[in-house]
Amino acid sequence: MAAALQDVLPKDPDFEARARASFARQSMMATLGMSLETVAPGAVEMAMPYAPHILQQHGFVHAGAISTLVDNACGFAAMTLMPKGSGVLTVEFKVNMMSPGKGDRFIGVGRVVRPGKTIMVTLGECFAETGGERKLIAMMTATMMVVETPGIVD
Amino acid sequence: MAAALQDVLPKDPDFEARARASFARQSMMATLGMSLETVAPGAVEMAMPYAPHILQQHGFVHAGAISTLVDNACGFAAMTLMPKGSGVLTVEFKVNMMSPGKGDRFIGVGRVVRPGKTIMVTLGECFAETGGERKLIAMMTATMMVVETPGIVD
Amino acid sequence: MAAALQDVLPKDPDFEARARASFARQSMMATLGMSLETVAPGAVEMAMPYAPHILQQHGFVHAGAISTLVDNACGFAAMTLMPKGSGVLTVEFKVNMMSPGKGDRFIGVGRVVRPGKTIMVTLGECFAETGGERKLIAMMTATMMVVETPGIVD
Amino acid sequence: MAAALQDVLPKDPDFEARARASFARQSMMATLGMSLETVAPGAVEMAMPYAPHILQQHGFVHAGAISTLVDNACGFAAMTLMPKGSGVLTVEFKVNMMSPGKGDRFIGVGRVVRPGKTIMVTLGECFAETGGERKLIAMMTATMMVVETPGIVD
Repeated sequence: MAAALQDVLPKDPDFEARARASFARQSMMATLGMSLETVAPGAVEMAMPYAPHILQQHGFVHAGAISTLVDNACGFAAMTLMPKGSGVLTVEFKVNMMSPGKGDRFIGVGRVVRPGKTIMVTLGECFAETGGERKLIAMMTATMMVVETPGIVD
Repeated sequence: MAAALQDVLPKDPDFEARARASFARQSMMATLGMSLETVAPGAVEMAMPYAPHILQQHGFVHAGAISTLVDNACGFAAMTLMPKGSGVLTVEFKVNMMSPGKGDRFIGVGRVVRPGKTIMVTLGECFAETGGERKLIAMMTATMMVVETPGIVD
Repeated sequence: MAAALQDVLPKDPDFEARARASFARQSMMATLGMSLETVAPGAVEMAMPYAPHILQQHGFVHAGAISTLVDNACGFAAMTLMPKGSGVLTVEFKVNMMSPGKGDRFIGVGRVVRPGKTIMVTLGECFAETGGERKLIAMMTATMMVVETPGIVD
Repeated sequence: MAAALQDVLPKDPDFEARARASFARQSMMATLGMSLETVAPGAVEMAMPYAPHILQQHGFVHAGAISTLVDNACGFAAMTLMPKGSGVLTVEFKVNMMSPGKGDRFIGVGRVVRPGKTIMVTLGECFAETGGERKLIAMMTATMMVVETPGIVD
């Protein structure tokens, strides 16, 4: 999508360890059953199994759980490209829910499309996985901000 | 905001009972500690106390919990104006996170701005309440769709 | 909407002159027939008459003209609260088109909801005016960024 | 992006002629100097040269012109997959402006990511072309609605 993406090198060689440590500190992730799968420079994949405690009224996974998964994947994708000592904050995100949250598990993918120094623009997707097949069920664009604020360090 | 809003009358006189029953079927609400407070025609208020299991890495309430609260308030606001036998689906939402999720509890307010037959446009806000004072920390616009699909009845 | 809004004081007492001069330099405004009406601290109103050169295929005003009007109102609302010597850039905006662009003229209103030092969050509305009556036809949320970059001064 | 995209077949074999006729009826396109380039099932490309009458105050192409270009590309991409006798309306769009509107000309690309019967979700991009090189400067997600309303036929 963004030709320059392949040229992006992480500014912090320990980006993966930092992302995994930060993820482990998010109690919301354990509550919703999310796991951090792949961590690459500018791209992150997370997973969340279908579970009875994260549903809406029709038995599908709640749109809030889906969007949390994708927003987080986008935020951590941004984190992989940030310098040490900084933190990432979600400025805004927008998500289109394209199909109901039905499936064995859900994969959230976040990618940095525009890696700015202060503002990073990301593209996120959620796939529902059923019997090994993936179907795109949600798409997100999110703006992340890189901050250097005491107490806001990832 | 929308002058015609005051003229909006619910098509289903049991709108509040229906909203409360539908809310009770969402396991995600119990998981995140959310409660359905006010239910009025075209406007809904929900609450969520600060809690240790819904946080991000800096100790604030996770943006995913905030947006779930507001998205849900918007969806239920739309539900209050729908005819019996129909269901509401989130088409999309966009949220601006304006301040960190710090506070005693969080109030999500959803209002229908444009009550169409098929598409309802809603405006949502999240307030952080600390010592009784409210501060606006997030703003959302969300598009809801009214469907008459077997199995998708609220 | 935002209680603290009334407390906001412009950092540059010449905010209105600056906004009007900046508006006059936007050739796009003349092309679309837009005028800058009210300029207040944190809030701006613009107008655009219905005209045959800004239509889409069904004879309504093009969604692009509507969103340009509201985005600009939001950007100038942000500009009124910025210090001298800085500039404003649109980071992103999202617009819900609620009714077709029919009417005598269109009023775009932008308000700053969260006046941050770097990031300003704004809420925008478009009203179609017909025979003096106003109808809300579009709603926007927009993120504006305050920059101090040579060449990007408003 | 969406694996199933390649399987999408247009429901109206005259989709290209219909899109070109509809485009020709949009006076806004001529006003901004836009041309309809490629029309494929589910994907459309438009172009707009840099021109002195579509600028903002710093000499860049106005964000409103950029977003009009991409919104329109998304709308026409949706139109290519609609049945004869229907029309397309923009429900909402969100655009991230990633770099200033600098370049010789601007290319707007719209693709249908989720071709529903009523709701189509699209992904749009804007590239600035300078000396033949393309740079991604804006990204959009847009929701289009297929309507069968008298007077709203493309």
